[in-house]
Amino acid sequence: MYKLVLVRHGESIWNKENRFTGWKDVDLSEKGKLEAVAAGQRLKAEGFEFDKVYTSVLTRAIKTAWSIMSELDACYLPVINSWKLNERHYGGLQGLNKAETAEKHGEDQVLVWRRSYNTPPPELEKTDERYPGNDTRYSELSESEIPLTECLADTVERVVPYYESVIVPEIKAGKRLLVAAHGNSIRALVKYLDDMSEDAIMKVNIPTATPLVYELDENLKPIKHYYLADEEALAEAMNAVANQGKKQ
Amino acid sequence: MYKLVLVRHGESIWNKENRFTGWKDVDLSEKGKLEAVAAGQRLKAEGFEFDKVYTSVLTRAIKTAWSIMSELDACYLPVINSWKLNERHYGGLQGLNKAETAEKHGEDQVLVWRRSYNTPPPELEKTDERYPGNDTRYSELSESEIPLTECLADTVERVVPYYESVIVPEIKAGKRLLVAAHGNSIRALVKYLDDMSEDAIMKVNIPTATPLVYELDENLKPIKHYYLADEEALAEAMNAVANQGKKQ
Repeated sequence: MYKLVLVRHGESIWNKENRFTGWKDVDLSEKGKLEAVAAGQRLKAEGFEFDKVYTSVLTRAIKTAWSIMSELDACYLPVINSWKLNERHYGGLQGLNKAETAEKHGEDQVLVWRRSYNTPPPELEKTDERYPGNDTRYSELSESEIPLTECLADTVERVVPYYESVIVPEIKAGKRLLVAAHGNSIRALVKYLDDMSEDAIMKVNIPTATPLVYELDENLKPIKHYYLADEEALAEAMNAVANQGKKQ
Repeated sequence: MYKLVLVRHGESIWNKENRFTGWKDVDLSEKGKLEAVAAGQRLKAEGFEFDKVYTSVLTRAIKTAWSIMSELDACYLPVINSWKLNERHYGGLQGLNKAETAEKHGEDQVLVWRRSYNTPPPELEKTDERYPGNDTRYSELSESEIPLTECLADTVERVVPYYESVIVPEIKAGKRLLVAAHGNSIRALVKYLDDMSEDAIMKVNIPTATPLVYELDENLKPIKHYYLADEEALAEAMNAVANQGKKQ
Protein backbone atom coordinates (compact mmCIF):
# COMPACT_ATOMS: atom_id res chain seq x y z
CA MET A 1 0.00 0.00 0.00
CA TYR A 2 1.15 3.49 -0.85
CA LYS A 3 0.37 6.90 0.57
CA LEU A 4 0.27 10.11 -1.41
CA VAL A 5 -0.23 13.46 0.29
CA LEU A 6 -1.72 16.41 -1.56
CA VAL A 7 -1.88 19.88 -0.08
CA ARG A 8 -3.28 23.13 -1.42
CA HIS A 9 -1.23 26.22 -0.61
CA GLY A 10 -2.14 28.39 2.38
CA GLU A 11 -4.29 31.48 1.91
CA SER A 12 -2.74 33.86 -0.59
CA ILE A 13 -2.98 37.62 -0.62
CA TRP A 14 -5.44 37.40 -3.49
CA ASN A 15 -7.53 34.66 -1.88
CA LYS A 16 -7.87 37.13 0.92
CA GLU A 17 -8.73 39.96 -1.47
CA ASN A 18 -11.19 37.64 -3.23
CA ARG A 19 -9.53 38.07 -6.66
CA PHE A 20 -9.15 35.55 -9.47
CA THR A 21 -5.55 34.47 -9.13
CA GLY A 22 -4.76 31.69 -11.59
CA TRP A 23 -1.15 31.99 -12.70
CA LYS A 24 -0.58 35.39 -11.12
CA ASP A 25 2.32 34.79 -8.73
CA VAL A 26 0.97 36.24 -5.51
CA ASP A 27 2.51 35.43 -2.17
CA LEU A 28 0.96 33.80 0.87
CA SER A 29 -0.90 36.07 3.25
CA GLU A 30 0.22 36.16 6.87
CA LYS A 31 -2.63 33.80 7.65
CA GLY A 32 -1.54 31.57 4.77
CA LYS A 33 2.00 31.37 6.16
CA LEU A 34 0.62 30.25 9.51
CA GLU A 35 -1.66 27.72 7.83
CA ALA A 36 1.33 26.24 6.00
CA VAL A 37 3.30 25.93 9.22
CA ALA A 38 0.29 24.30 10.89
CA ALA A 39 0.02 21.81 8.03
CA GLY A 40 3.67 20.88 8.56
CA GLN A 41 3.17 20.52 12.29
CA ARG A 42 0.14 18.31 11.74
CA LEU A 43 2.03 16.06 9.33
CA LYS A 44 4.90 15.83 11.81
CA ALA A 45 2.55 15.01 14.68
CA GLU A 46 1.01 12.22 12.56
CA GLY A 47 4.45 10.81 11.82
CA PHE A 48 4.54 11.54 8.10
CA GLU A 49 7.88 11.50 6.31
CA PHE A 50 8.60 12.19 2.68
CA ASP A 51 11.27 11.37 0.12
CA LYS A 52 10.45 14.02 -2.45
CA VAL A 53 8.24 17.04 -2.96
CA TYR A 54 6.39 18.07 -6.11
CA THR A 55 5.06 21.56 -6.53
CA SER A 56 4.20 24.19 -9.11
CA VAL A 57 6.27 27.17 -10.20
CA LEU A 58 4.06 29.54 -8.21
CA THR A 59 5.38 31.07 -5.00
CA ARG A 60 2.36 30.35 -2.81
CA ALA A 61 2.59 26.60 -3.40
CA ILE A 62 6.39 26.51 -3.17
CA LYS A 63 6.44 28.41 0.11
CA THR A 64 3.76 26.11 1.48
CA ALA A 65 6.00 23.18 0.58
CA TRP A 66 9.02 24.88 2.18
CA SER A 67 7.13 25.54 5.40
CA ILE A 68 6.02 21.94 5.62
CA MET A 69 9.55 20.70 4.88
CA SER A 70 10.89 23.04 7.53
CA GLU A 71 8.45 21.77 10.16
CA LEU A 72 9.36 18.19 9.25
CA ASP A 73 13.10 18.99 9.62
CA ALA A 74 13.44 17.91 6.00
CA CYS A 75 14.51 21.02 4.11
CA TYR A 76 16.97 18.82 2.22
CA LEU A 77 14.27 16.92 0.32
CA PRO A 78 14.43 17.24 -3.45
CA VAL A 79 11.78 19.64 -4.73
CA ILE A 80 10.55 19.25 -8.28
CA ASN A 81 8.83 22.33 -9.68
CA SER A 82 6.55 22.03 -12.68
CA TRP A 83 4.16 24.45 -14.34
CA LYS A 84 2.01 21.38 -14.99
CA LEU A 85 0.94 21.59 -11.35
CA ASN A 86 0.08 25.29 -11.57
CA GLU A 87 -3.35 26.60 -10.70
CA ARG A 88 -5.93 26.65 -13.47
CA HIS A 89 -5.21 29.66 -15.69
CA TYR A 90 -8.07 32.11 -15.29
CA GLY A 91 -7.56 33.93 -18.60
CA GLY A 92 -9.01 37.41 -18.78
CA LEU A 93 -10.45 37.15 -15.29
CA GLN A 94 -7.04 37.06 -13.62
CA GLY A 95 -6.68 39.95 -11.22
CA LEU A 96 -10.38 40.81 -11.10
CA ASN A 97 -12.11 40.88 -7.78
CA LYS A 98 -14.53 37.98 -7.60
CA ALA A 99 -17.32 39.95 -5.99
CA GLU A 100 -16.97 42.74 -8.59
CA THR A 101 -17.03 40.19 -11.40
CA ALA A 102 -20.18 38.69 -9.91
CA GLU A 103 -21.70 42.17 -9.73
CA LYS A 104 -20.87 42.79 -13.39
CA HIS A 105 -21.53 39.42 -15.02
CA GLY A 106 -23.90 37.93 -12.48
CA GLU A 107 -23.19 35.26 -9.92
CA ASP A 108 -24.36 32.56 -12.30
CA GLN A 109 -21.82 33.44 -14.97
CA VAL A 110 -19.05 33.58 -12.40
CA LEU A 111 -20.12 30.23 -11.03
CA VAL A 112 -20.03 28.82 -14.56
CA TRP A 113 -16.51 30.14 -15.10
CA ARG A 114 -15.37 28.91 -11.74
CA ARG A 115 -17.19 25.62 -11.66
CA SER A 116 -18.07 24.60 -15.20
CA TYR A 117 -15.93 21.75 -16.33
CA ASN A 118 -15.80 22.81 -19.97
CA THR A 119 -16.38 26.55 -20.18
CA PRO A 120 -13.20 28.60 -20.03
CA PRO A 121 -13.19 32.29 -19.08
CA PRO A 122 -12.36 34.82 -21.85
CA GLU A 123 -8.90 34.32 -23.38
CA LEU A 124 -5.97 36.59 -22.68
CA GLU A 125 -4.50 38.48 -25.61
CA LYS A 126 -0.83 37.67 -26.22
CA THR A 127 -0.13 41.38 -25.91
CA ASP A 128 -1.61 41.34 -22.42
CA GLU A 129 0.95 41.87 -19.69
CA ARG A 130 -0.58 38.88 -17.97
CA TYR A 131 0.38 36.58 -20.89
CA PRO A 132 2.64 33.86 -19.39
CA GLY A 133 4.92 33.92 -22.45
CA ASN A 134 6.39 37.15 -21.05
CA ASP A 135 7.55 35.39 -17.88
CA THR A 136 11.04 33.80 -17.93
CA ARG A 137 9.89 30.85 -15.85
CA TYR A 138 7.81 29.73 -18.83
CA SER A 139 10.52 30.36 -21.42
CA GLU A 140 10.97 26.66 -22.16
CA LEU A 141 7.30 26.15 -23.03
CA SER A 142 6.25 26.05 -26.64
CA GLU A 143 3.71 28.68 -27.65
CA SER A 144 1.03 26.01 -27.94
CA GLU A 145 1.66 24.92 -24.36
CA ILE A 146 1.14 28.39 -22.91
CA PRO A 147 -2.50 28.77 -21.91
CA LEU A 148 -4.51 31.88 -22.71
CA THR A 149 -7.27 30.61 -20.44
CA GLU A 150 -8.33 27.28 -19.00
CA CYS A 151 -11.45 25.47 -17.98
CA LEU A 152 -11.02 22.67 -15.47
CA ALA A 153 -10.96 20.16 -18.35
CA ASP A 154 -7.84 21.94 -19.67
CA THR A 155 -6.21 21.79 -16.26
CA VAL A 156 -7.00 18.08 -16.01
CA GLU A 157 -5.40 17.56 -19.40
CA ARG A 158 -2.06 18.91 -18.22
CA VAL A 159 -2.10 17.65 -14.61
CA VAL A 160 -3.13 14.04 -15.19
CA PRO A 161 -0.49 13.20 -17.83
CA TYR A 162 2.12 14.77 -15.52
CA TYR A 163 0.87 12.63 -12.65
CA GLU A 164 0.91 9.50 -14.78
CA SER A 165 4.29 10.04 -16.39
CA VAL A 166 6.28 11.67 -13.58
CA ILE A 167 4.65 11.04 -10.22
CA VAL A 168 3.29 7.50 -10.64
CA PRO A 169 6.70 5.93 -11.37
CA GLU A 170 8.04 7.52 -8.17
CA ILE A 171 5.16 6.17 -6.10
CA LYS A 172 5.67 2.72 -7.58
CA ALA A 173 9.36 2.99 -6.71
CA GLY A 174 8.26 3.37 -3.10
CA LYS A 175 8.89 7.09 -2.77
CA ARG A 176 6.76 8.90 -0.23
CA LEU A 177 5.60 12.01 -2.03
CA LEU A 178 4.13 15.33 -1.05
CA VAL A 179 2.39 17.34 -3.76
CA ALA A 180 1.94 20.99 -2.83
CA ALA A 181 -0.29 22.59 -5.43
CA HIS A 182 -3.47 24.56 -6.05
CA GLY A 183 -7.23 24.28 -5.71
CA ASN A 184 -7.78 23.24 -9.30
CA SER A 185 -4.64 21.22 -9.96
CA ILE A 186 -5.55 19.18 -6.88
CA ARG A 187 -9.12 18.85 -8.09
CA ALA A 188 -7.72 17.48 -11.33
CA LEU A 189 -5.87 14.82 -9.36
CA VAL A 190 -8.86 14.07 -7.13
CA LYS A 191 -11.12 13.66 -10.17
CA TYR A 192 -8.65 11.26 -11.71
CA LEU A 193 -7.89 9.28 -8.56
CA ASP A 194 -11.51 8.91 -7.48
CA ASP A 195 -12.79 8.59 -11.05
CA MET A 196 -15.33 11.33 -10.47
CA SER A 197 -17.82 12.74 -12.95
CA GLU A 198 -17.47 16.25 -14.33
CA ASP A 199 -20.47 17.32 -12.27
CA ALA A 200 -19.18 15.76 -9.09
CA ILE A 201 -15.71 17.34 -9.22
CA MET A 202 -17.33 20.77 -9.65
CA LYS A 203 -18.78 20.41 -6.19
CA VAL A 204 -15.50 19.52 -4.51
CA ASN A 205 -13.79 22.35 -2.66
CA ILE A 206 -10.19 21.85 -1.60
CA PRO A 207 -9.42 23.64 1.66
CA THR A 208 -6.18 25.61 1.97
CA ALA A 209 -3.12 24.05 3.60
CA THR A 210 -4.95 20.92 4.74
CA PRO A 211 -3.07 17.72 3.95
CA LEU A 212 -5.20 15.32 1.90
CA VAL A 213 -3.94 11.78 2.31
CA TYR A 214 -4.65 9.14 -0.31
CA GLU A 215 -4.02 5.53 0.56
CA LEU A 216 -3.48 3.65 -2.67
CA ASP A 217 -3.45 -0.07 -3.42
CA GLU A 218 -0.78 -1.87 -5.42
CA ASN A 219 -2.40 -0.65 -8.66
CA LEU A 220 -2.49 2.90 -7.26
CA LYS A 221 -6.27 2.80 -6.92
CA PRO A 222 -7.49 4.71 -3.86
CA ILE A 223 -8.47 2.59 -0.87
CA LYS A 224 -9.51 5.67 1.03
CA HIS A 225 -8.65 9.32 1.50
CA TYR A 226 -8.90 11.73 4.37
CA TYR A 227 -7.91 15.23 5.39
CA LEU A 228 -5.57 15.79 8.31
CA ALA A 229 -7.66 18.41 10.07
CA ASP A 230 -10.15 18.91 12.82
CA GLU A 231 -13.68 18.42 11.45
CA GLU A 232 -14.81 21.88 12.42
CA ALA A 233 -11.76 23.68 11.05
CA LEU A 234 -12.11 21.70 7.82
CA ALA A 235 -15.77 22.57 7.24
CA GLU A 236 -14.94 26.21 7.86
CA ALA A 237 -12.05 26.14 5.39
CA MET A 238 -14.13 24.44 2.68
CA ASN A 239 -17.01 26.85 3.21
CA ALA A 240 -14.64 29.79 2.86
CA VAL A 241 -13.65 28.52 -0.61
CA ALA A 242 -17.24 27.84 -1.71
CA ASN A 243 -18.29 31.40 -0.78
CA GLN A 244 -15.58 33.20 -2.73
CA GLY A 245 -17.69 33.69 -5.90
CA LYS A 246 -20.62 35.26 -4.09
CA LYS A 247 -21.42 38.92 -3.86
CA GLN A 248 -20.29 40.38 -0.61
CA MET B 1 32.31 35.94 -19.58
CA TYR B 2 30.45 34.12 -16.85
CA LYS B 3 29.40 35.03 -13.34
CA LEU B 4 29.17 32.61 -10.45
CA VAL B 5 27.80 33.70 -7.08
CA LEU B 6 28.79 31.92 -3.88
CA VAL B 7 27.18 32.67 -0.55
CA ARG B 8 27.80 31.27 2.89
CA HIS B 9 24.67 30.71 5.00
CA GLY B 10 23.59 33.35 7.51
CA GLU B 11 24.55 33.05 11.15
CA SER B 12 23.38 29.75 12.61
CA ILE B 13 22.33 29.06 16.16
CA TRP B 14 25.62 27.30 16.76
CA ASN B 15 27.71 30.04 15.14
CA LYS B 16 26.06 32.24 17.69
CA GLU B 17 26.79 29.77 20.49
CA ASN B 18 30.36 29.46 19.26
CA ARG B 19 30.15 25.66 18.80
CA PHE B 20 31.77 23.42 16.18
CA THR B 21 28.90 22.73 13.83
CA GLY B 22 30.11 20.74 10.83
CA TRP B 23 27.37 18.45 9.63
CA LYS B 24 25.10 19.03 12.63
CA ASP B 25 21.90 20.36 11.09
CA VAL B 26 21.31 23.49 13.12
CA ASP B 27 18.96 26.21 11.95
CA LEU B 28 19.67 29.85 11.20
CA SER B 29 19.56 32.22 14.16
CA GLU B 30 17.16 35.15 13.99
CA LYS B 31 20.12 37.30 12.96
CA GLY B 32 21.06 34.73 10.33
CA LYS B 33 17.55 34.84 8.86
CA LEU B 34 17.79 38.61 8.53
CA GLU B 35 21.27 38.31 6.99
CA ALA B 36 19.92 35.92 4.38
CA VAL B 37 17.08 38.28 3.50
CA ALA B 38 19.56 41.15 3.27
CA ALA B 39 21.75 39.10 0.91
CA GLY B 40 18.75 38.53 -1.33
CA GLN B 41 17.83 42.21 -1.27
CA ARG B 42 21.39 43.14 -2.16
CA LEU B 43 21.47 40.73 -5.09
CA LYS B 44 18.13 42.08 -6.28
CA ALA B 45 19.31 45.69 -5.97
CA GLU B 46 22.39 44.80 -8.04
CA GLY B 47 20.21 43.23 -10.73
CA PHE B 48 21.33 39.62 -10.28
CA GLU B 49 19.18 36.87 -11.71
CA PHE B 50 19.73 33.13 -11.54
CA ASP B 51 18.72 30.05 -13.46
CA LYS B 52 19.52 27.43 -10.85
CA VAL B 53 20.58 27.12 -7.24
CA TYR B 54 23.04 24.66 -5.73
CA THR B 55 23.16 24.05 -2.03
CA SER B 56 24.02 21.44 0.58
CA VAL B 57 21.66 19.15 2.47
CA LEU B 58 21.97 21.27 5.60
CA THR B 59 19.08 23.47 6.68
CA ARG B 60 21.06 26.65 7.29
CA ALA B 61 22.36 26.77 3.72
CA ILE B 62 19.05 25.70 2.19
CA LYS B 63 17.09 28.34 4.09
CA THR B 64 19.63 30.96 3.08
CA ALA B 65 19.05 29.95 -0.53
CA TRP B 66 15.28 30.05 -0.05
CA SER B 67 15.41 33.54 1.46
CA ILE B 68 17.50 34.82 -1.42
CA MET B 69 15.18 33.18 -3.97
CA SER B 70 12.21 34.71 -2.21
CA GLU B 71 13.71 38.21 -2.28
CA LEU B 72 14.51 37.75 -5.98
CA ASP B 73 10.88 36.67 -6.68
CA ALA B 74 12.36 33.45 -7.97
CA CYS B 75 11.13 30.73 -5.63
CA TYR B 76 10.49 28.59 -8.71
CA LEU B 77 14.18 28.13 -9.51
CA PRO B 78 15.40 24.54 -9.48
CA VAL B 79 17.36 23.79 -6.31
CA ILE B 80 19.93 21.02 -6.38
CA ASN B 81 20.91 19.72 -2.96
CA SER B 82 24.12 17.79 -2.50
CA TRP B 83 26.00 16.59 0.57
CA LYS B 84 29.13 17.33 -1.47
CA LEU B 85 28.57 21.00 -0.65
CA ASN B 86 28.13 20.36 3.07
CA GLU B 87 30.29 22.08 5.64
CA ARG B 88 33.56 20.40 6.56
CA HIS B 89 32.79 17.52 8.92
CA TYR B 90 34.26 18.39 12.29
CA GLY B 91 34.49 14.80 13.61
CA GLY B 92 34.61 14.44 17.37
CA LEU B 93 34.58 18.19 17.86
CA GLN B 94 31.05 18.60 16.54
CA GLY B 95 28.82 20.12 19.17
CA LEU B 96 31.66 21.29 21.40
CA ASN B 97 31.84 24.93 22.33
CA LYS B 98 34.84 26.47 20.60
CA ALA B 99 35.91 28.52 23.58
CA GLU B 100 35.68 25.46 25.88
CA THR B 101 37.69 23.40 23.42
CA ALA B 102 40.31 26.14 23.34
CA GLU B 103 40.37 26.11 27.13
CA LYS B 104 40.86 22.33 27.17
CA HIS B 105 43.19 21.72 24.23
CA GLY B 106 44.75 25.15 23.95
CA GLU B 107 44.05 27.81 21.36
CA ASP B 108 46.90 26.56 19.20
CA GLN B 109 45.46 23.05 18.87
CA VAL B 110 42.03 24.46 18.06
CA LEU B 111 43.55 26.75 15.48
CA VAL B 112 45.33 23.74 13.95
CA TRP B 113 42.09 21.80 13.77
CA ARG B 114 40.21 24.76 12.38
CA ARG B 115 42.85 26.08 10.07
CA SER B 116 45.34 23.33 9.27
CA TYR B 117 44.91 22.12 5.76
CA ASN B 118 45.84 18.52 6.49
CA THR B 119 45.16 17.79 10.15
CA PRO B 120 41.67 16.45 10.82
CA PRO B 121 40.06 16.59 14.26
CA PRO B 122 39.54 13.28 16.11
CA GLU B 123 37.35 10.78 14.24
CA LEU B 124 33.78 10.01 15.23
CA GLU B 125 33.01 6.44 16.23
CA LYS B 126 30.38 4.80 14.04
CA THR B 127 28.41 4.12 17.19
CA ASP B 128 28.34 7.84 17.91
CA GLU B 129 24.89 9.37 17.55
CA ARG B 130 26.59 12.06 15.48
CA TYR B 131 27.66 9.49 12.84
CA PRO B 132 26.06 10.64 9.55
CA GLY B 133 25.27 7.04 8.56
CA ASN B 134 22.37 7.19 11.04
CA ASP B 135 20.73 10.06 9.14
CA THR B 136 18.32 9.13 6.32
CA ARG B 137 19.51 12.01 4.16
CA TYR B 138 22.83 10.18 3.76
CA SER B 139 21.27 6.78 3.15
CA GLU B 140 22.45 6.65 -0.45
CA LEU B 141 26.10 7.21 0.44
CA SER B 142 28.43 4.26 0.59
CA GLU B 143 30.12 3.69 3.93
CA SER B 144 33.44 4.86 2.51
CA GLU B 145 31.87 8.15 1.45
CA ILE B 146 30.57 8.98 4.92
CA PRO B 147 33.18 11.06 6.72
CA LEU B 148 34.17 10.39 10.33
CA THR B 149 36.09 13.67 10.34
CA GLU B 150 37.56 16.01 7.76
CA CYS B 151 40.45 18.36 7.37
CA LEU B 152 40.05 21.07 4.75
CA ALA B 153 41.98 18.89 2.27
CA ASP B 154 39.22 16.27 2.62
CA THR B 155 36.53 18.88 2.04
CA VAL B 156 38.38 20.11 -1.06
CA GLU B 157 38.50 16.54 -2.32
CA ARG B 158 34.72 16.24 -2.33
CA VAL B 159 33.77 19.81 -3.27
CA VAL B 160 36.09 20.33 -6.23
CA PRO B 161 35.15 17.18 -8.16
CA TYR B 162 31.49 18.09 -7.61
CA TYR B 163 32.18 21.58 -8.93
CA GLU B 164 34.02 20.22 -11.95
CA SER B 165 31.56 17.48 -12.85
CA VAL B 166 28.21 19.07 -11.96
CA ILE B 167 28.52 22.84 -11.74
CA VAL B 168 31.04 23.62 -14.48
CA PRO B 169 28.94 22.09 -17.29
CA GLU B 170 26.03 24.26 -16.18
CA ILE B 171 28.13 27.41 -16.20
CA LYS B 172 29.44 26.54 -19.65
CA ALA B 173 25.85 26.05 -20.79
CA GLY B 174 25.26 29.67 -19.83
CA LYS B 175 23.34 29.03 -16.64
CA ARG B 176 23.56 31.75 -14.01
CA LEU B 177 24.18 29.87 -10.78
CA LEU B 178 23.94 30.62 -7.11
CA VAL B 179 25.82 28.32 -4.74
CA ALA B 180 24.61 28.62 -1.14
CA ALA B 181 26.98 26.67 1.05
CA HIS B 182 29.28 26.80 4.06
CA GLY B 183 32.47 28.44 5.27
CA ASN B 184 34.69 25.53 4.35
CA SER B 185 32.94 24.25 1.24
CA ILE B 186 33.19 27.78 -0.13
CA ARG B 187 36.86 27.96 0.90
CA ALA B 188 37.38 24.77 -1.08
CA LEU B 189 35.92 26.47 -4.15
CA VAL B 190 37.88 29.68 -3.56
CA LYS B 191 41.15 27.74 -3.21
CA TYR B 192 40.43 25.95 -6.47
CA LEU B 193 39.23 28.97 -8.42
CA ASP B 194 42.04 31.27 -7.31
CA ASP B 195 44.64 28.49 -7.30
CA MET B 196 45.65 29.35 -3.76
CA SER B 197 48.27 27.63 -1.63
CA GLU B 198 47.31 25.55 1.39
CA ASP B 199 48.73 28.26 3.63
CA ALA B 200 46.92 31.05 1.87
CA ILE B 201 43.46 29.46 1.99
CA MET B 202 43.86 28.93 5.74
CA LYS B 203 43.88 32.68 6.16
CA VAL B 204 40.71 33.28 4.16
CA ASN B 205 37.57 33.84 6.19
CA ILE B 206 34.24 33.70 4.39
CA PRO B 207 31.71 36.09 5.91
CA THR B 208 28.14 34.88 6.49
CA ALA B 209 25.41 35.66 3.96
CA THR B 210 27.59 37.95 1.86
CA PRO B 211 27.36 37.20 -1.88
CA LEU B 212 30.80 36.50 -3.36
CA VAL B 213 30.76 37.14 -7.08
CA TYR B 214 33.28 35.48 -9.38
CA GLU B 215 33.62 36.78 -12.89
CA LEU B 216 35.05 33.98 -15.01
CA ASP B 217 36.59 34.03 -18.47
CA GLU B 218 35.66 31.62 -21.25
CA ASN B 219 37.91 28.96 -19.69
CA LEU B 220 36.23 29.58 -16.33
CA LYS B 221 39.39 31.20 -14.93
CA PRO B 222 38.60 34.05 -12.52
CA ILE B 223 39.00 37.56 -13.94
CA LYS B 224 38.11 39.06 -10.60
CA HIS B 225 35.95 38.47 -7.57
CA TYR B 226 34.24 40.72 -5.09
CA TYR B 227 31.81 40.63 -2.22
CA LEU B 228 28.49 42.42 -2.45
CA ALA B 229 28.71 44.26 0.84
CA ASP B 230 29.65 47.55 2.39
CA GLU B 231 33.37 47.53 3.23
CA GLU B 232 32.76 48.15 6.89
CA ALA B 233 30.06 45.52 7.31
CA LEU B 234 32.27 43.04 5.46
CA ALA B 235 35.35 43.58 7.66
CA GLU B 236 33.15 43.17 10.70
CA ALA B 237 31.64 39.92 9.40
CA MET B 238 35.08 38.47 8.50
CA ASN B 239 36.48 39.47 11.86
CA ALA B 240 33.60 37.77 13.63
CA VAL B 241 34.53 34.48 11.91
CA ALA B 242 38.24 34.83 12.61
CA ASN B 243 37.58 35.34 16.34
CA GLN B 244 35.40 32.28 16.85
CA GLY B 245 38.25 30.00 17.99
CA LYS B 246 39.53 32.37 20.63
CA LYS B 247 38.86 32.17 24.33
CA GLN B 248 36.11 34.53 25.34
